[in-house]
Amino acid sequence: MPDFQAILESIYQDAKQASDKGIVATYIPELAHIDKNNFAIHLRTSNGKCYGVGDFNKLFSIQSISKVLALSKAISLIGESVWDRIDVEPSGHPFNQLALLEINNGIPRNPFINSGAIVIADILVSNLENPKEDFLNYVRELSGDASINFNIDVAHSEQSTGFKNFAAANLLKSYKNLNNPVDKVLDFYFYQCSIEMSCSQLSSVFYLFANNGKCLQNKLHLTGSQVKRVNALMLTCGFYDEAGEFAFEVGLPGKSGVGGGIVALLPDHFVISTWSPGLNVKGNSKLGMLALEQFTTKTKLSIF
Amino acid sequence: MPDFQAILESIYQDAKQASDKGIVATYIPELAHIDKNNFAIHLRTSNGKCYGVGDFNKLFSIQSISKVLALSKAISLIGESVWDRIDVEPSGHPFNQLALLEINNGIPRNPFINSGAIVIADILVSNLENPKEDFLNYVRELSGDASINFNIDVAHSEQSTGFKNFAAANLLKSYKNLNNPVDKVLDFYFYQCSIEMSCSQLSSVFYLFANNGKCLQNKLHLTGSQVKRVNALMLTCGFYDEAGEFAFEVGLPGKSGVGGGIVALLPDHFVISTWSPGLNVKGNSKLGMLALEQFTTKTKLSIF
Amino acid sequence: MPDFQAILESIYQDAKQASDKGIVATYIPELAHIDKNNFAIHLRTSNGKCYGVGDFNKLFSIQSISKVLALSKAISLIGESVWDRIDVEPSGHPFNQLALLEINNGIPRNPFINSGAIVIADILVSNLENPKEDFLNYVRELSGDASINFNIDVAHSEQSTGFKNFAAANLLKSYKNLNNPVDKVLDFYFYQCSIEMSCSQLSSVFYLFANNGKCLQNKLHLTGSQVKRVNALMLTCGFYDEAGEFAFEVGLPGKSGVGGGIVALLPDHFVISTWSPGLNVKGNSKLGMLALEQFTTKTKLSIF
Amino acid sequence: MPDFQAILESIYQDAKQASDKGIVATYIPELAHIDKNNFAIHLRTSNGKCYGVGDFNKLFSIQSISKVLALSKAISLIGESVWDRIDVEPSGHPFNQLALLEINNGIPRNPFINSGAIVIADILVSNLENPKEDFLNYVRELSGDASINFNIDVAHSEQSTGFKNFAAANLLKSYKNLNNPVDKVLDFYFYQCSIEMSCSQLSSVFYLFANNGKCLQNKLHLTGSQVKRVNALMLTCGFYDEAGEFAFEVGLPGKSGVGGGIVALLPDHFVISTWSPGLNVKGNSKLGMLALEQFTTKTKLSIF
Repeated sequence: MPDFQAILESIYQDAKQASDKGIVATYIPELAHIDKNNFAIHLRTSNGKCYGVGDFNKLFSIQSISKVLALSKAISLIGESVWDRIDVEPSGHPFNQLALLEINNGIPRNPFINSGAIVIADILVSNLENPKEDFLNYVRELSGDASINFNIDVAHSEQSTGFKNFAAANLLKSYKNLNNPVDKVLDFYFYQCSIEMSCSQLSSVFYLFANNGKCLQNKLHLTGSQVKRVNALMLTCGFYDEAGEFAFEVGLPGKSGVGGGIVALLPDHFVISTWSPGLNVKGNSKLGMLALEQFTTKTKLSIF
Repeated sequence: MPDFQAILESIYQDAKQASDKGIVATYIPELAHIDKNNFAIHLRTSNGKCYGVGDFNKLFSIQSISKVLALSKAISLIGESVWDRIDVEPSGHPFNQLALLEINNGIPRNPFINSGAIVIADILVSNLENPKEDFLNYVRELSGDASINFNIDVAHSEQSTGFKNFAAANLLKSYKNLNNPVDKVLDFYFYQCSIEMSCSQLSSVFYLFANNGKCLQNKLHLTGSQVKRVNALMLTCGFYDEAGEFAFEVGLPGKSGVGGGIVALLPDHFVISTWSPGLNVKGNSKLGMLALEQFTTKTKLSIF
Repeated sequence: MPDFQAILESIYQDAKQASDKGIVATYIPELAHIDKNNFAIHLRTSNGKCYGVGDFNKLFSIQSISKVLALSKAISLIGESVWDRIDVEPSGHPFNQLALLEINNGIPRNPFINSGAIVIADILVSNLENPKEDFLNYVRELSGDASINFNIDVAHSEQSTGFKNFAAANLLKSYKNLNNPVDKVLDFYFYQCSIEMSCSQLSSVFYLFANNGKCLQNKLHLTGSQVKRVNALMLTCGFYDEAGEFAFEVGLPGKSGVGGGIVALLPDHFVISTWSPGLNVKGNSKLGMLALEQFTTKTKLSIF
Repeated sequence: MPDFQAILESIYQDAKQASDKGIVATYIPELAHIDKNNFAIHLRTSNGKCYGVGDFNKLFSIQSISKVLALSKAISLIGESVWDRIDVEPSGHPFNQLALLEINNGIPRNPFINSGAIVIADILVSNLENPKEDFLNYVRELSGDASINFNIDVAHSEQSTGFKNFAAANLLKSYKNLNNPVDKVLDFYFYQCSIEMSCSQLSSVFYLFANNGKCLQNKLHLTGSQVKRVNALMLTCGFYDEAGEFAFEVGLPGKSGVGGGIVALLPDHFVISTWSPGLNVKGNSKLGMLALEQFTTKTKLSIF
């Protein structure tokens, strides 16, 4: 067993001294104002140990990381019929591109590009009684942490500036791949993306994906086969058009968000979460990716 | 430990009765004449056991599977500078499409689409004294099997019909991403793809990727970090525009060829090879993919 | 001078007997219910003569033909600065495709694809006091015909089904190429497209483009140079991805609409309007295009 | 009748003083060494008058301008069946892009992008006894000028660097839209493009397109309908992805070449040729385009 705490500390020291910490997302004020010196890593192992460095209890906007949780909830609600409306292939293109949607007649390439996540949101809106509340409860239940919440300011800011998402949802609607009204689906979607967590909470919430579908509260949410597939999707599609790079350099299934968070996991071994708000040109946390690459290199723990 | 032989036999029985065995590649006579009732699986585990069903000692054309071996040789020759000329992202498009090459100014998306493999061939032509002979010796050395050979008829047939590959190579040349003459590089490339192996030989040759870079002869060819990266590439890019599907359904790094072969592996555990010449619409062996999906489902052995 | 009436009658007889009259647009009920046996041609010459066959006084929905009038009004309001926000190149793609908009960072390829027409609508909304009323008055003024009007049912049907237009407008907004709210611009746009005219009225309204910018009421609306440019755009971009075909077969600047209307013109000579609701696969009136091809072949009157 | 000579002289004075004369093509030494201060205009009217300024008797490489002559010869050899293998739509993309060829299954968008011109070359190679000699004789016959010739150095330089053309020809071959061997077709193609003319010769050679198909020697080469179509193609496709701009600003059918030549014409009125070797970013002669725009603005002579 490697000395995880020592490894995290050494990564933390390197990260603190990085000359280029990337660029914080500026498209909404709530993200633009975040200090890019924030940095945290949190590791939760399968045998119940936790390790952390930096601001691992500080909240940040999980943004696209929520797409994995929404997918997971959708699968537990309607099973494999999710895949009638969404494909499982990497897009090879930026997360918000609409061109591929046109080529594929309204079938998003995967559930983690925005158009795919909007279809998942549509499924949740159709199948949950109180979509926002029920989804939030699901996330809380996964971690046993009732303090997790939406950031309503973030949701409203997204709503008033998210024109590309409105474009995507209307395009899906034109291809009859959206059952609910555009406004209703996006209202839910913007709330979903606005959830805030700390790295510590993130490691807890994602524990089921490293634990064959059983969450931290020991409740089974997904079958082993379903977990395998969600993990495969994280690996091939979790980092936009940098998914290959992440698989190549880090070698773990994971998901990033524009708020600077990344969560990754090794099945049966651990969940690791990082937060550093500065992004690289592909929209993934710059220091977070470096930290995870160092972690798998130093520990030699990856799926490959 | 699952009863591997029983599992393989049960998969074999199912496959033999499949009503749709896919369509054999017809673009060259040497492939068109193969009987699509051929079927084989061969498994080699890390602890030295072998299991097989069907025609696992019968030779077939490994075709694109050779791209992994060429990449591996190129990395051992010039290291990470391979990546100055090729990217590591899934293409999201068919294996022979040229459009993306234009968008990316002559940098292939990954080493397993044809244009990427042609750049690797160019590297080998530049760095090997007798490219064909040296490459064949490398493959033989990996498995300790001196009987492995080119099929010269296949190579010549490819040469006289491979216009898309000539198009790709000329396009690479126009972007200055090919150092040797087009004809010289493609001559090598067509030989490389013409190598024949049985499933049993394939499992032996690919053993190093499941064994941290050490081949069956116990010689170290790649570092652990290099193996990790080759495996990551197989997972994200090994099956053309069906890579996501394979990761999703099977959950193993692997590579397919148009001759109907597939090789896949679980690091530190096993290499598994299948051969069934009928292809699905994406160009991957139809029954081979089904067999591997059944195998990982029944054994619960996957990277995820 | 050819015997225009005899030529029109002979074309009319051929058209009446055509076995394939194309397919009527069905995306809104108001268009779906139109009888595809309607057929009309109307010709207005520069020396004041009019000729017609068929239902040339019957109203139909001019749809995209209105885009030329909106462009013309926009140019007369803000001049050449229109071209800061829209390009003048043929798209080579279907009229409603969004992919090119992404490639070109929100600058539509020309003012006659939907995204370009929506930018023009945005300009009119910004620069007209009462956009709908003022635009309708402009059209009435061009022809001296106060009976021309919107079809409000058509406008409302478009509004409730026009998801691709909402997608385009939101995408334009995301690129900051839409100054007014999406709903406001599209409300105007759907009204603009809902205008109804007969072939006879259409020939009158478009008279200015064959008359160096001076309308039927003898008022100068556009300079000679501006007319030249609008005509050039009709020729290169007036028929979606069939513009080349129309230039090639017919050889006149013109514009089609999904309601089955086409208007075309030879500067200093004539305006000709056709109506036949059945469309070909590219969305242009099938018999209208044939009629115009016959007309220019028989009269030898084209710009080439 | 405008005072043509005075107008040409005034344009010439402006051009001489232009601060930005564009950039001379550098991909082969024969073009790279041309002095960008060369400038010429030559005008030939239908009533037999000629006007010129600058170096209008100096030879330059007509390059892509030759594509119009090759098309014309192909039509006179096999008629409308040319269009079974090539479309007539503007590409909306650069002249050498291969992506569209893939989308359209090997049917080039029009005969003036490189892939289309290569199909035309294939037709000529199939249908002429001595392709190079016969084609050269055709061009000489059009003008009655036996001094017109290939520049063999240019042809050989193109041959040794024209990898994109080799890529296009091989791609066409893979789609079975090339009947002769790649090398044979391109050998002819590079010779065809290497023809040299002066502006004065260019105006003579293109005279048939302004004269209903009858050349300067009064021989009928194309029917009126065929000329109409070639002119339509020049207008919609003659300037690569700047065709719309040229139609919009100049309003004449025309064709440019990378050697800095442009020829344009008004049917029944005149042919005008310009030469200025500096190109704009789209590959069209910068001062040539400006000169033609000024010419049609000052004379008010355009097709629109």
